[in-house]
Formats: sequence, C-alpha cells, structure tokens
Amino acid sequence: MNPVQTYETIQDRIQQVEERIRAQSDGHHPELGAALDHLVSSGGKRVRPTVTLLMGGMLKADPNRLINLAAAIEMLHTATLVHDDLIDGAYLRRGIPTLNAQWSPAATVLAGDFIFARAAKLASDTNSVEVMQMFAETLTVIVNGEITQMFSNHEDSRRNEYLERIYAKTASLFEVATKAAAVLSNVNLEIQNAARTYGYEIGMAFQIVDDVLDFTSEQSTVGKPVASDLRQGLITLPAIYYIDAHPDDPDVQLLLAGNHINEDSLSRLAEAISKSSVIGKTMNEANQYLDRALKALGTLPESPERDALEDLANYIVHRDY
Amino acid sequence: MNPVQTYETIQDRIQQVEERIRAQSDGHHPELGAALDHLVSSGGKRVRPTVTLLMGGMLKADPNRLINLAAAIEMLHTATLVHDDLIDGAYLRRGIPTLNAQWSPAATVLAGDFIFARAAKLASDTNSVEVMQMFAETLTVIVNGEITQMFSNHEDSRRNEYLERIYAKTASLFEVATKAAAVLSNVNLEIQNAARTYGYEIGMAFQIVDDVLDFTSEQSTVGKPVASDLRQGLITLPAIYYIDAHPDDPDVQLLLAGNHINEDSLSRLAEAISKSSVIGKTMNEANQYLDRALKALGTLPESPERDALEDLANYIVHRDY
Repeated sequence: MNPVQTYETIQDRIQQVEERIRAQSDGHHPELGAALDHLVSSGGKRVRPTVTLLMGGMLKADPNRLINLAAAIEMLHTATLVHDDLIDGAYLRRGIPTLNAQWSPAATVLAGDFIFARAAKLASDTNSVEVMQMFAETLTVIVNGEITQMFSNHEDSRRNEYLERIYAKTASLFEVATKAAAVLSNVNLEIQNAARTYGYEIGMAFQIVDDVLDFTSEQSTVGKPVASDLRQGLITLPAIYYIDAHPDDPDVQLLLAGNHINEDSLSRLAEAISKSSVIGKTMNEANQYLDRALKALGTLPESPERDALEDLANYIVHRDY
Repeated sequence: MNPVQTYETIQDRIQQVEERIRAQSDGHHPELGAALDHLVSSGGKRVRPTVTLLMGGMLKADPNRLINLAAAIEMLHTATLVHDDLIDGAYLRRGIPTLNAQWSPAATVLAGDFIFARAAKLASDTNSVEVMQMFAETLTVIVNGEITQMFSNHEDSRRNEYLERIYAKTASLFEVATKAAAVLSNVNLEIQNAARTYGYEIGMAFQIVDDVLDFTSEQSTVGKPVASDLRQGLITLPAIYYIDAHPDDPDVQLLLAGNHINEDSLSRLAEAISKSSVIGKTMNEANQYLDRALKALGTLPESPERDALEDLANYIVHRDY
C-alpha cells in the first residue's frame, strides 16, 4: 500500500502542485509546454512534493507559499533528471521515453535549463530569501555530486564515496524540502532541525532502497534493466558489501580491474548479489536511516500529517523488494 | 578608448566581483574550480558587471549586495555561454578554447548547471526576493529565446523575430542588471524604470553593434570567423536589411531557399553586406537605442557614475567598427 496515493487530503494539493508546474510554460514557446506536460505526466509518485506538503502542513506553513516550494522541489528534481538522462543516453525512464529520446541533445540541454529557471522562480515565489538560498545550495550540491562522480579517482573509500554520492543525488533534495517547509512555517531552530533530519534520513534510505531494488526487481517493475547501475559501472551499497565479502570471486576481480566486464560476468555477479546476504545487510542499513527519521519525527507535533509522514517513511523503506 | 577599462574606481570593484565569482567553486570538486578560473580568465570586458556597479553606485545600493548582484549577472551570462558553445559546437570564444573544447559534452552540461546554481546563490545573497524573482525570470527569457530560435518556423516577420531574439539573448540581462541595481538601492518606481530603460536600450544596441561587427571585423578582432552568424544560418539585422533591399540577388535567393549555401555564395554575400549601405542603416538603428538610453540616463542623478554610464553607452555603440 502506497500512502502517497492513499492520503486523500494530500492528493488535492499534489494536483495543485502539478497545475502550478504545468503553468510554468505559460507565455513561453509551445514546445516547452509540450515537454513539461510530458514530464509531468510521466512523473513518478511525487514523493518529494508529498513530503514537502505534509511537513509544511504539520508545521502550519502558508498553503500558497508551500505549493510554490513543493512545485520548485519537484521541478528541480525534474530538471536534473532531464540533464542526467541526456548525459547517460537513457531513452526510457519508468518505461516512458525520456525527453532526449525525442529531442535533440541541444534542445534537451535548453529544456533542462528552462526547468531550472522556472524552479528557481517558484523557489523565489516562496518569498523567503533563506529558502531561495537553500534551494540554490542544494542545486549546487546535486551538480557537484555528479561532477565528482564523473571525475572520481576512487581515492576515498567506496562506502564514503557512495554515501556522499547518494546524499548529493537524493538526500539533499529531501533535506531541503523538509527544512524549507519548516522555514516557511516560522518554527524555531530545534523544530527546523528535526524536520531537516527527517528529510535527510528518509532521503538516504530512499536511495539505498532504490539501489537494492535495482538488484532485486524484475525489469517490468522498475521499467529498466535489472542491475542497471552495475551495467553503468556504478557500484552501489549492495555491490560494495558483496565485494568486501567476496574479494576472490573472479567476477568481482574483473569488476575491480575496471576493464570492460562482459555480459556473462555481469549477469552472474548481479544474480549472486541479489541472492546473497548483502541484500539483508543493506536493508538493515536502510532501516537504521528509517529509525533515525522516525525518531526525529517523534519530536514534532502530533497530527494527521505526522502519521502520514510516518507511513511514508515506512513505505519508502518497505516498498516491494 | 574603452571606458570599462579606464574608470579606475570601478576596476577595484570589478576585481572584487571576479574574486567573488572564483570563490563560488570553494568546497566543490577541484575540476569545477579549474573550469571557473578558465572562464573568468578568458572573460571579456565585464560590461555587464560594470553597468551593474555603476548603476547601483549612482543610486547608492549597499556595496556588498551590489557585488553579489554583479557577480550573479556575470555568472548567469557565463553559464549561458557554456551551454551555448556546447550546443553550437564552438571550440573558440574570443580566441580562447571553450570549455567544451576541453571537456566532454556531459561534463560541460554539468559545469553550466553548476554555474547556474552559483549564480542563483549569489542572486539570493542580494537578500532581495524581488531581485531573485527578476533573476529567475531573466534566465527563463534567455532560455525561452534560444528554444524559440531553435524551433523557429519563421512565421513572424524577420525583423520582429530578430528583435525578440536579441532581447532574450542580450538586452534582458542588461535590463535586469540595471533594474535590480535600482531595486537594491530602494529608489522609487520612476527611477527604477529609468534604470531599467537604460539597461534595456544599451543591451539592444550592444547586440545590434555586435551583429554589425560580425560583418565588418577581421577574424583576429572578434576571435571568430567573420560572418559567423550567417554561416550558422542566423540572419541578423544587417542581413535582414540587405535581403529587403536586394530580393533578386541570387545569393540572397539561395540563402532564403534555406538549402545549404556554399562557401562562395556565403563569402560573396558577407562581403556585399559589409560594403553596402545596410551597415550604416543598422548603425542608425543602434544609435536610436543609444539615444533612448541616454535620455533615460539624463533623468537619473548627476554623478561620476552617470558620466561613466554615458561614456559606456557611447562606447558600446561606437567601438571599433
């Protein structure tokens, strides 16, 4: 059961967020409207705006400024996906053609820039300089994380590199979503920090579980080939634990040599990882993030939103795996 | 004589702007620092931050917030150039290798995104929600202009299309530079509008003169091939006037047919345009923008900065052509 889809009050406001996102192409080139419609329609479960709306709802943020914040967060996420899919040459996301599958690289770069621009406008429409500053810092963290991954020389330990990467890629945006929702609510610093912690911890858990699902899911579920990270040379936490536990596995040695790894080795490795105890070990780690998220949440005001955020955190870690 | 380089008080502050720009890579991946250094070092005459600093200086904006604004404007400009050069496959700008001449397309997309992010951060560091909103709107206008050019079906008249394009590409940023400097100065709406008008008019003039110089300069002066716009299929104001005056010229007919135009025809056309009266006609138009800029400037407080802005406007229109 996905609480994102069942919490009815939020559904109305998510719809408002989607409308506000679609309205961002008004007055601009019609192709941008078409692109934005396509991206909104093919969007996922809206976990980020949901978290934003629930946190801001619980802490009594102004509803209109909160809609702007939630729309800004979702558009920032969308813009990074547009450029990522272009960079990765990915033609499908969630089983739906990406923008770069239909547009030239040049137009896709500009479409991403346009969405960044509108996300920045929505962030400034929260009327909070502090939120705007956090928003720009988060965009910096996300892009710096991608650049760091691209130029990585693996000097750092694999585990640290992984944790930094998923913070930049995913947790930073959940963190700004919940922190900014608290800032808009004019609550004290202690409450802002608890909100921020909740966002950070579920963001980290979210990405770790995603990385587990990449090994344990069938292609039809995630809409992309299983072990897609490994195929791209991206070593995620389950693979890191497997490497540590099986340094002598010939497929592991091939992988670490950094040469092109053939399909046979890759499939065998992905299969071995998915059936091994490292999946449980990685899920344990995700559960530790979940526990810290729930602990931070427990210090926030009792409310239907808090219950929903608890459900959501549990769902994030325990979705089909 | 270039007043940008001779107005000494401004030189100190331009240096502060450059330092603030370079500082934006602090704490991030070293390659980003290298890229930013390269871009700052190969930067042009800093016309945009100069205009920003002079306008804000004249209207008594807080110096530190003004430096942030000027740095934000220059970085926004830089970020759009990084993505533009990638899109155009340009390997030189002002005779210096572009970022995409040295980096992969993927890294160049991300470098541009990073610079956008830091520009947004600097804009938010002006501590003005209004400036931040204008900044995001300007980024939207710039990118929308590029998308419109890319998908253009030439439904609009060539002249209107041209004026809209150069507004989006150039004048919008000069406009936000001077308007935002006025907003930071807390002056009344009338003064804000005069500041905005000055920026808009010199921005339009700046681009028109650039487009004239593309026909009248030697390769060594602009660091790129003469008639580079025409080579890219971009029809600027001198070419529009030439087309209107010589509809029966066989080279014009080839150009309008939209097919691949050979080097002989292209050189002949570029040469013909550069020697024809359309250059004077286009310069007349630039001078009209200049007159309106100076008229708006005349309503602003007498000051050394106003004199410098007058010199700068004259320089923009009368630089070597």
